[in-house]
Amino acid sequence: MPTAPLADLGRRAQAAARLLATTTTGARDAALLAAADLLVAATPEILAANAMDVARATRADALPTVVDRLRLDAGRVEAMAAGLRQVAGLSDPVGEVVAGWTRPNGLRITKVRVPLGVVGIIYENRPNVTSDAFGLCLKSGNAAFLRGSSGAVTSNMAIAAVLRQGMAKAGLPEDGLLLVEDTSRESAVEFMRLRGLIDVLIPRGGRSLIDAILESATVPYVIDGDGNCHVYVDEHADLGVARDIVVNAKTQRPSVCNAAESLVVHQSVAAAFLPEVARALDGVELVGDAASRALAPSIAEAQEADFDTEFLDLKMSVAVVGDLDAAIEWVNAHGSGHTEAIVTRDLAAADRFTREVDAAAVVVNASTRFVDGERFGFGAEIGISTQKLHARGPMGLRQLTTEKYVVRGDGHIVV
Amino acid sequence: MPTAPLADLGRRAQAAARLLATTTTGARDAALLAAADLLVAATPEILAANAMDVARATRADALPTVVDRLRLDAGRVEAMAAGLRQVAGLSDPVGEVVAGWTRPNGLRITKVRVPLGVVGIIYENRPNVTSDAFGLCLKSGNAAFLRGSSGAVTSNMAIAAVLRQGMAKAGLPEDGLLLVEDTSRESAVEFMRLRGLIDVLIPRGGRSLIDAILESATVPYVIDGDGNCHVYVDEHADLGVARDIVVNAKTQRPSVCNAAESLVVHQSVAAAFLPEVARALDGVELVGDAASRALAPSIAEAQEADFDTEFLDLKMSVAVVGDLDAAIEWVNAHGSGHTEAIVTRDLAAADRFTREVDAAAVVVNASTRFVDGERFGFGAEIGISTQKLHARGPMGLRQLTTEKYVVRGDGHIVV
Repeated sequence: MPTAPLADLGRRAQAAARLLATTTTGARDAALLAAADLLVAATPEILAANAMDVARATRADALPTVVDRLRLDAGRVEAMAAGLRQVAGLSDPVGEVVAGWTRPNGLRITKVRVPLGVVGIIYENRPNVTSDAFGLCLKSGNAAFLRGSSGAVTSNMAIAAVLRQGMAKAGLPEDGLLLVEDTSRESAVEFMRLRGLIDVLIPRGGRSLIDAILESATVPYVIDGDGNCHVYVDEHADLGVARDIVVNAKTQRPSVCNAAESLVVHQSVAAAFLPEVARALDGVELVGDAASRALAPSIAEAQEADFDTEFLDLKMSVAVVGDLDAAIEWVNAHGSGHTEAIVTRDLAAADRFTREVDAAAVVVNASTRFVDGERFGFGAEIGISTQKLHARGPMGLRQLTTEKYVVRGDGHIVV
Repeated sequence: MPTAPLADLGRRAQAAARLLATTTTGARDAALLAAADLLVAATPEILAANAMDVARATRADALPTVVDRLRLDAGRVEAMAAGLRQVAGLSDPVGEVVAGWTRPNGLRITKVRVPLGVVGIIYENRPNVTSDAFGLCLKSGNAAFLRGSSGAVTSNMAIAAVLRQGMAKAGLPEDGLLLVEDTSRESAVEFMRLRGLIDVLIPRGGRSLIDAILESATVPYVIDGDGNCHVYVDEHADLGVARDIVVNAKTQRPSVCNAAESLVVHQSVAAAFLPEVARALDGVELVGDAASRALAPSIAEAQEADFDTEFLDLKMSVAVVGDLDAAIEWVNAHGSGHTEAIVTRDLAAADRFTREVDAAAVVVNASTRFVDGERFGFGAEIGISTQKLHARGPMGLRQLTTEKYVVRGDGHIVV
């Protein structure tokens, strides 16, 4: 497959980003709606391209879950189009005046929200990310520079071609979406070193991708990291509420990053709570410390590493702690900075937990599963940041922007 | 000089940061004031330590400007103390509720400003940075983890010891300030790879330090980069205003990053403006393109690299452009994303320049020299970011914080 050198693609993306930064919300929404219509109209071509990826995966004996994630049907294409239409309906963060003031000398300063420029995204097998990422980038005035996996490249190329037609139809630069067709490992490393051409890189993948970025990236990035989320059941918890929250946080959708992976229980309620929650978590493999196993025999022995593992499965680690201090210390030591929950009726315990636990989101008396862009009301989500710089927690359209100071004077000079 | 392993220092800094994150503004202000008093009282010891650094630099034939930056006297120590007192008087960004809303299901979400944790700073020869950085980090609830240059290490150790006493006197953890005493290059690289122990790294140094960080750092960082700042004199500029702004931006303090390095002039005013501004810039070495040299013979021939160089000196590049489009293109091609100014009376030109130029700050009819934390009214500044993530432009106390979501429910589960 013949492709342009990566840096050339990056320069084209930058040129498109410059143009997109001056377009109106109306023009960008028109492109989103045009792209949505074209996606639906191109369903046969997209499914034909996807069938080639699926056949390759099947020949290579890929896991059924991998093939399922890869496979498109008419309903999934319609869902991609619906996603673009939904994003078109969201309010545009670009142009928001974040702050403004006048200095004593009359100099007027405003801080205005502007697009980041070129958003690079490295992602895995789901072809719908091609469309979803494009939608969020375009709405926020950015060019999308996408690098999917080799397993989905035929699908991604077909989808990207249609989305680019949508841009052209609305009079916007087609290069507002560029897809890297070379899916080699070398190309991925080259991609993350396009400093000056990629304004932010958002990796959506596992540990090895994150490690490669930490080692090799020279472009700025936002890490969408692991969620080793805890639910701490306090001495003063309503145990019925605690049981429902733990079951929901663990089992409602175990494969996502805001699912709970670890249960921490205050010793004074452990005897009453653990046997009951173990029954309620029927079908979940529980591994715990000695104190928890003494109270609930269905809990197996945990390895030390279990407490630091994001299982993303029907498995949960369990620990008993002596007091709130120990609970906070445990969560800070083992958590990954994503989402941590406490169940308690005690105001002081809730206040201390929310203040002293260091995470993107701290939850009181609710399931960890609420921490995502949709459930926060952002309308859409590009990921959940576990880093502290730029964006922390669910990232919506606003997190795809930066700010620019505009300073207006009347011949002012520094004296 | 015996020092603890760097990772041990990092763990101590993290422990101190956890404690500092829960302290009140009052307690931190008390520590700042105590440290200020102790600094003044310890002036003899600090000057004695500094004399050793100065003697070493003199023996090594360091440049007079280097020795001057390094040398302390009673007035400079008093100025460090005054800086701490000033920071104590600023308002505390920590605890600010940045946003808050209630979801349709009754879940209450707030976004609260919290300290970053451990702020790592790598800096060069000025010993006052030890005190200034400590003050800004402490005020914003962070632990300061400092790594100065080898040339100033004796001074820095003396200053840090006094500041740590101030912490202890106010009942705060001394490890809220930790100074790396091993100033080898290997130690700097190890420092920038303390992922999980340093929450943000702010380098204050030249190109080689930035390059080392891009290549080696695994901790998050904010780049305080070059300022290749332009002043564009538009077709519709008031030429007297333009002359004053160019002279001020270039000569008022040429060694700083917000000084102008490049003059761009619209062709229709170049004949009237260039000879006059060249006279007004008497003492400034001007290097320009052919069109500018034809109009003002005192302008020497520029090399292509001159247009991309931050001179930090009484030198300026000059270019003539055909129209506003060419001016914007020129500035975006040669600028470093710091500060760019336009002088014009034309509203449409001002609007286009501010919208289409991609920089942390865009200035209309004022000197580029206004773009810094003090002149913006932030009260203090840790640097000026030329990156787009987290902080863009002058960084004050608020840029030393991050945000945390606090989600409160009443037994809410996801259905």
